[in-house]
Amino acid sequence: MPPWVRSGRAPACLTMKKISVLTLCVLALSVVGARRALAEDREDGGYKEAVDRLRETGLANERAYELLKRVTSVGPRLTGSSPAAAAVELTRALMEKLGLARVHTEPVEVGHWVRGSVAEATVAASPSRAAVPLSVCALGGSVGTPARGITAPVIEVRSLAEAAALGNALKGKIVFFNRPMDRRTADAFAAYGGAADQRVAGASAAARNGAVAVLVRSLTFREDRNPHTGMLRYDDSVPRIPAAAVATVDADSLSALIKEEKSVSVTLRMDCRDLGRILSANVVGEITGAELPREIVLVGGHLDSWDLGVGAHDDAAGCAAALEAVALLRDLGLRPKRTIRVVLFMDEEFGGTGGRAYAVAPQRKGERHIVAAESDRGGFAPVGLAVGGRDRKALDLVSMHADLFRPFGVTFIVPGGGGVDVAPLIEKGAVPAAVMINAQAYFDVHHAALDVDASVHPRELELQAVILAALAYILAQEGV
Amino acid sequence: MPPWVRSGRAPACLTMKKISVLTLCVLALSVVGARRALAEDREDGGYKEAVDRLRETGLANERAYELLKRVTSVGPRLTGSSPAAAAVELTRALMEKLGLARVHTEPVEVGHWVRGSVAEATVAASPSRAAVPLSVCALGGSVGTPARGITAPVIEVRSLAEAAALGNALKGKIVFFNRPMDRRTADAFAAYGGAADQRVAGASAAARNGAVAVLVRSLTFREDRNPHTGMLRYDDSVPRIPAAAVATVDADSLSALIKEEKSVSVTLRMDCRDLGRILSANVVGEITGAELPREIVLVGGHLDSWDLGVGAHDDAAGCAAALEAVALLRDLGLRPKRTIRVVLFMDEEFGGTGGRAYAVAPQRKGERHIVAAESDRGGFAPVGLAVGGRDRKALDLVSMHADLFRPFGVTFIVPGGGGVDVAPLIEKGAVPAAVMINAQAYFDVHHAALDVDASVHPRELELQAVILAALAYILAQEGV
Repeated sequence: MPPWVRSGRAPACLTMKKISVLTLCVLALSVVGARRALAEDREDGGYKEAVDRLRETGLANERAYELLKRVTSVGPRLTGSSPAAAAVELTRALMEKLGLARVHTEPVEVGHWVRGSVAEATVAASPSRAAVPLSVCALGGSVGTPARGITAPVIEVRSLAEAAALGNALKGKIVFFNRPMDRRTADAFAAYGGAADQRVAGASAAARNGAVAVLVRSLTFREDRNPHTGMLRYDDSVPRIPAAAVATVDADSLSALIKEEKSVSVTLRMDCRDLGRILSANVVGEITGAELPREIVLVGGHLDSWDLGVGAHDDAAGCAAALEAVALLRDLGLRPKRTIRVVLFMDEEFGGTGGRAYAVAPQRKGERHIVAAESDRGGFAPVGLAVGGRDRKALDLVSMHADLFRPFGVTFIVPGGGGVDVAPLIEKGAVPAAVMINAQAYFDVHHAALDVDASVHPRELELQAVILAALAYILAQEGV
Repeated sequence: MPPWVRSGRAPACLTMKKISVLTLCVLALSVVGARRALAEDREDGGYKEAVDRLRETGLANERAYELLKRVTSVGPRLTGSSPAAAAVELTRALMEKLGLARVHTEPVEVGHWVRGSVAEATVAASPSRAAVPLSVCALGGSVGTPARGITAPVIEVRSLAEAAALGNALKGKIVFFNRPMDRRTADAFAAYGGAADQRVAGASAAARNGAVAVLVRSLTFREDRNPHTGMLRYDDSVPRIPAAAVATVDADSLSALIKEEKSVSVTLRMDCRDLGRILSANVVGEITGAELPREIVLVGGHLDSWDLGVGAHDDAAGCAAALEAVALLRDLGLRPKRTIRVVLFMDEEFGGTGGRAYAVAPQRKGERHIVAAESDRGGFAPVGLAVGGRDRKALDLVSMHADLFRPFGVTFIVPGGGGVDVAPLIEKGAVPAAVMINAQAYFDVHHAALDVDASVHPRELELQAVILAALAYILAQEGV
């Protein structure tokens, strides 16, 4: 990094330095856009001052990270667990302390799966080789094994289709799904999406051909010994068999061994189990709209998390960004015409019962959700905005104010948004919206022991909160 | 993070999920641009296949990070030091191993400042208080203190102007420049630029009014105990006085103490010193252009670094990105019409003697540098491109190919580029260019002990290299 920036006695090269650093900061986002001309021809609706105040107050204090630490302080918030219940109480109290209105919880009946205390897998090949432990964890929702474990030969496959095609060859086997996330894909979410079917549907695909258990390569680009959990879905038409995630380094070792040895068997032991249904809750608070209180711009994240880390990025970050966005607006006295409501949903990770319960709760009567903005893409640096809806009106509205967002690094505004929790609202006509986040490192920590507070950058998270506040405020003022 | 992505049996909400994740990946960068229409109307010049291959090979292997580790393996590369000399030898050999052509070094006479082994500051206030050590380091280029140290009352100021206005009040004092980087500024480089004058020019500004030493608050947003070094510039018209950076936590403590106590004095001891001039080198290699070998697209970074960490982001990352960009092109047989040359410059941190020497070296005779792309913005995630020049032709050319860069997260292409090392080439007409990087965390590590390999993400760095390769290739094919 250059030594001279705005120094008193600049060398000749400062001219270029200024271009690269300072001018860029100003010009930076003169991405030439059809809408830009439009924006330049209009007033900014008085939003510039509001957005400046949000930025200055937000970035000066970085409270979002403090809120994140409050959420994770209860520990990992597996749906149905006592830390999840503690998180409900804690965030309800936090909303009151932050001065939100109409703070309350709404009941959600959720599943209560527990990981138990045992998740072991041991590989045995030829008698001359020592048995080797694999770093594994149960996939969320998996049944356990008998106490003595399941021992069976391992067969490696790369896809659901391959497992289906192998037919009876899977009978009595442990099927090892080992297709990595495609590193060549620049978009990390797309690479995740291209490999996640193994985790979600692998167990039932293998069970259909008589397999007794499955191992699934962890969904991450990184080579390490952290297994990455996540939900599976059992197909009710076939037996439920145990399913474990294997750390990438261990998956590579197992694969190499399978290539070398005639017969490789694994013993898998897990005591995870399902404890039935339990009552939990969504947590709700708001700034009630001054003119149209029943028209609602929702911002939210999910309170539950996986349990290997503490769910700092997924999704304490989203909860914190939503809380901070609304708290900033309130602190600055920016009362919008329509209601801006923060909802912390329970049970996103096991399928979104919280989102569905919220959409049909009796409190929804007479309410109209015009926008639903879910933050569930991690706490890394914001890079863009996504705004959806049946027509492009909301997108056009936000794009008209693109200049307000550019200083935050928001350099694209595209159709999109949405998420598991807000999907039921969007089906009813709410416009989806989301802050898009740099995701290159997201799957390093996602659903793993690495998803802890220290992996979130306070300033990057605060930027997300400030952007969300500005977005929600404009939409609540303008309507869609 | 949602559990279902491309699962076999998608819930209703998958529709939205697809919009948010998959469609976005595709639509993501439909940032509406005047140039976009232009781009859509033209051929891509056959670049899509080349860029796909660069992406696939680059991201699959993440070699840039391996190259970074090679560069940092020699240790901190302070200009004039023996690790800096080792880095010259190592990278010259590395270029040969990577198959570059015309690999050679070019001499640069540089300064040889050494930090020494002592940098201590101790605060003494009223007799009832224990003396407290401050976490400090010498600023680059600072003179040392006498062996017994300098003990003097401290006076806190916020700016060069305040120091100038205080006149004789500074006489015999240690001046403490304590204006923080402005956290409210979303652009981290701008915040750095707004505070760096204290470090660069503080010592001479204070000396002009008779001060005996200066302490300067470290240039970072973070509150920690790492001092951040960096170059200072002495004004020859006033005495050279010692200058140290103070960690932010210590700066806050010192400031609080000054408010509480009538008189606060500091003892500063440092044995840093200047050892005169020494011969070092720039390291040069290339893919020689097939048709116009004397027209050159330069990519580069700087080989020297500060010495508290190992200069992983600043600027082993830039060196690695440039090396990997050229190595990828070579590995894939993408021989351009014009030469693509990688130059690893010596001595950016003390003012760019390497860049100036390169520009006037005898080897430049008959060469024409059409583009000079310096990578010196850290190894974090790429977010945009900056392309400069006297007219907008180069910018327009690159913008025409914006679609090729969008999948990498490059969502803006703006006027800019440049840097200390390439400034002399740009003065002679080369078009500046640069990959712009997310900088929110850059100043956390910048010039401090935290700038180590582990702070660089292999995939984010590789993306920078791939983008740089694509940019250089297009410019070398098309000319500007």
